[in-house]
Amino acid sequence: MSGAGDRFLGDLRAGLGDRAVVTDPDILEGHRHDSASFCPAGSPRALVRPASTSEVQHVIRTAGAHRVPVVTQGARTGLSGGANAVDGCLLLSTEQMSRILELDVADQVAVVQPGVVNATLSRAVAERGLFYPPDPSSWEQSTIGGNVATNAGGLCCVKYGVTADFVRGLEVVLGTGEVLRTGRRTAKGVAGYDLTRLVVGSEGTLGVVTEVTLALRPAPEPALTVAASFRTGEDALRAAAAVMACGLRPSLLEFIDQTTARAIQSYRDMGLPEDVGGLLLAQSDRGALAAADIGRVAGICADHDAIDVAEASDAQDSELLLEARRLVNAGLEMLGVKLVDDVAVPRPRLPELLRGVQQIAEDLDVLIACPGHVGDGNMHPTVIIDRDDPDGERRAVLAFDAVMDLGLRLGGTITGEHGVGSLKRRWLERELGTTGAALHRRIREIFDPLGVLNPGKVLEPLPPESAPGTPPGTPPGTLPR
Amino acid sequence: MSGAGDRFLGDLRAGLGDRAVVTDPDILEGHRHDSASFCPAGSPRALVRPASTSEVQHVIRTAGAHRVPVVTQGARTGLSGGANAVDGCLLLSTEQMSRILELDVADQVAVVQPGVVNATLSRAVAERGLFYPPDPSSWEQSTIGGNVATNAGGLCCVKYGVTADFVRGLEVVLGTGEVLRTGRRTAKGVAGYDLTRLVVGSEGTLGVVTEVTLALRPAPEPALTVAASFRTGEDALRAAAAVMACGLRPSLLEFIDQTTARAIQSYRDMGLPEDVGGLLLAQSDRGALAAADIGRVAGICADHDAIDVAEASDAQDSELLLEARRLVNAGLEMLGVKLVDDVAVPRPRLPELLRGVQQIAEDLDVLIACPGHVGDGNMHPTVIIDRDDPDGERRAVLAFDAVMDLGLRLGGTITGEHGVGSLKRRWLERELGTTGAALHRRIREIFDPLGVLNPGKVLEPLPPESAPGTPPGTPPGTLPR
Repeated sequence: MSGAGDRFLGDLRAGLGDRAVVTDPDILEGHRHDSASFCPAGSPRALVRPASTSEVQHVIRTAGAHRVPVVTQGARTGLSGGANAVDGCLLLSTEQMSRILELDVADQVAVVQPGVVNATLSRAVAERGLFYPPDPSSWEQSTIGGNVATNAGGLCCVKYGVTADFVRGLEVVLGTGEVLRTGRRTAKGVAGYDLTRLVVGSEGTLGVVTEVTLALRPAPEPALTVAASFRTGEDALRAAAAVMACGLRPSLLEFIDQTTARAIQSYRDMGLPEDVGGLLLAQSDRGALAAADIGRVAGICADHDAIDVAEASDAQDSELLLEARRLVNAGLEMLGVKLVDDVAVPRPRLPELLRGVQQIAEDLDVLIACPGHVGDGNMHPTVIIDRDDPDGERRAVLAFDAVMDLGLRLGGTITGEHGVGSLKRRWLERELGTTGAALHRRIREIFDPLGVLNPGKVLEPLPPESAPGTPPGTPPGTLPR
Repeated sequence: MSGAGDRFLGDLRAGLGDRAVVTDPDILEGHRHDSASFCPAGSPRALVRPASTSEVQHVIRTAGAHRVPVVTQGARTGLSGGANAVDGCLLLSTEQMSRILELDVADQVAVVQPGVVNATLSRAVAERGLFYPPDPSSWEQSTIGGNVATNAGGLCCVKYGVTADFVRGLEVVLGTGEVLRTGRRTAKGVAGYDLTRLVVGSEGTLGVVTEVTLALRPAPEPALTVAASFRTGEDALRAAAAVMACGLRPSLLEFIDQTTARAIQSYRDMGLPEDVGGLLLAQSDRGALAAADIGRVAGICADHDAIDVAEASDAQDSELLLEARRLVNAGLEMLGVKLVDDVAVPRPRLPELLRGVQQIAEDLDVLIACPGHVGDGNMHPTVIIDRDDPDGERRAVLAFDAVMDLGLRLGGTITGEHGVGSLKRRWLERELGTTGAALHRRIREIFDPLGVLNPGKVLEPLPPESAPGTPPGTPPGTLPR
């Protein structure tokens, strides 16, 4: 694959040693995609696995000199195509940079390389009596670098916040190959603009993160769980809004809609009756107060016409009650190909969102499951496609778009935690507005003047002013292919 | 002051009506300064009080057309000269934009204009059973706009975070006069780069904030307090580090050093013995768990050789124990002119910071008090100057600089919560590094291409490369005057 005439690969290898640069077609094929459905992926030229910040600098400088696009990849568990290859790109894998550099127990700070898997870090800090809260569903596979790139959320955000809330400082290789050290190690600090937060969630378009300084917390007490089933999803969502408004801050508050509940029940018998319209799961990890907290949530659920309410009396019971939530993905997987959306709306508008999603499903004759992190107003309407339906994909994409439109109309956002990637690129400017989008482009130029970092992701390649008409391949009303 | 020949003022009035533009010399004199000591302040040309976003746009566009610098001011309680006038500038006061636009109790969100006083908002939300945590000492006077501009902290940050942690969205008039709406109203959201956080803490250099969307919390339970006195300040600081490492997250953790304790005792008899080396104050607001929490803190203090430990049994007792903390500023005010520093260091290094500050005081023959928000590692070494000492100011400035140098050497930051303004401008680049500072300048150019927004604040006007030698008036080792 890499002929002697390929000066780019030669230059790349010159600074890295041969093993770091991979051109094996099977390996490249296996690295083209992240976990998003229906997202375009190009053909990479090579995969490189730098082992240090200076090796990353060498990679970026060489790519810049040859104008080769660089797509940084962690574990490729992302759901928006942000880590998908673009044609002729170099894939930059962080897997050789997977060390926990420091775990400062006294100051509750960790310093890690980007390739550290979330679960590895979470377990290492738990062993020291500490807690790294961000827990995306992918936490057993996904890396801290990927979590930082997408500002990953998870189940615990409702109480503890998202990845960005734990990132104190970063080392970043910019598109110029320069190293930026930004942020701080201290609990507080206001020296200069918050470039750290600017890089978090930028999906590999502003730089390659090579080191992350993270805040940790004291370990929480074991959580107690309450599970409640409702006749309708809207009842459950009204109960969820009441829980969030009652003065409690649960450590988890999840919703499972009827379609998802049935999928789970088909996948494994969890004793979920066919006519359950919605489930609510809540946790409290406030130690001696947890039982009273979940009792209060149980009471609110009962007041909102819950059919059945189960309160766990210990951690083991709590895990059992959570089991249904853990089977959401496996259950939905059985139904067909999933196109997972990720809108967030103000919590009191969740019932409207659910109603609207059901209407979209009906209008377009598709199946849409609608589980969500409802404590944050973050729903994952999931369009399910039957592979045998020749028109299914077209209608699924229309439904996916209609859900984002609905989310924005309800005062929400097109993405609560998955990011824009290439999947939602066409939609971003509508949310940002013209002024915001223009600032995004100019900031991106500053960090990456040659345009080598993940080009074509997050933002449309050209502003509408300079690209009259719609770019080829992205007719209105469909996803970019 | 505003002759008929002043076309700028004429143009300004044309869009605002006469009452919004003030040129009365006494009023201008009263608005030249914020609350920082030893900070240069220029002579403003006029003061303008726009009443709406479109009036702010008119002001910025007119200033841009005439190349008149604009300094935005809230309540001028800042401590770094960020709101000080520059020569010939227009002062833009937000006091006519002081409405709480919306208080969404169900979703725990407030939307406010920038001129709303922190205490006004805090009380309004408390009446509805909610909580807006950021509580800078100035909270009775300072505005939300000013709190956003400086990313203000306070006593509660140790548990609840700083202003930035509560800002979900902003409306901002950029240096071009365009309106940017950034961020969101929802609890979560990752659409695009975090421009909201970029503007928070930018001290009026990236835009004029005209609307703020804030996250609120459920009201906490009344807090219980524990106060402990120690033979030495270092004992108290070691106890503080142990409290933070023990798994608790107190809702307040404050340190008062010997100099400050004596000043308080001189100001009002609080029963503080002459030989107290340091005081620690902690709170827990965890309701039924609060008594156990403060008991645990009391135990840790006893283990660290506290002389005396007092636990409050109710909210009233708790307020009494906090009284000493509330008198810090008044007590130190009696000793002379204060030059308040604001370094933050990793918490385990607080004893070194205190020792170092004492050494600086000794070496330079000055008095330095050293109270601090030690739960966050944020100290306020306060150099006290005797007005009658003709050489006092020179030595005070040397001490002030030496404290920042020490903070950086201990792995900390030059400013934990007060900001850079003009007071620490010379120091910022050392903390940011060359790459970071260059990015700051280029981002500023994007938001304010004409350079009208608070010029000369935060960043040195020219990068060192293009300004050989030190600019006149800022000899090394002294503050810019």
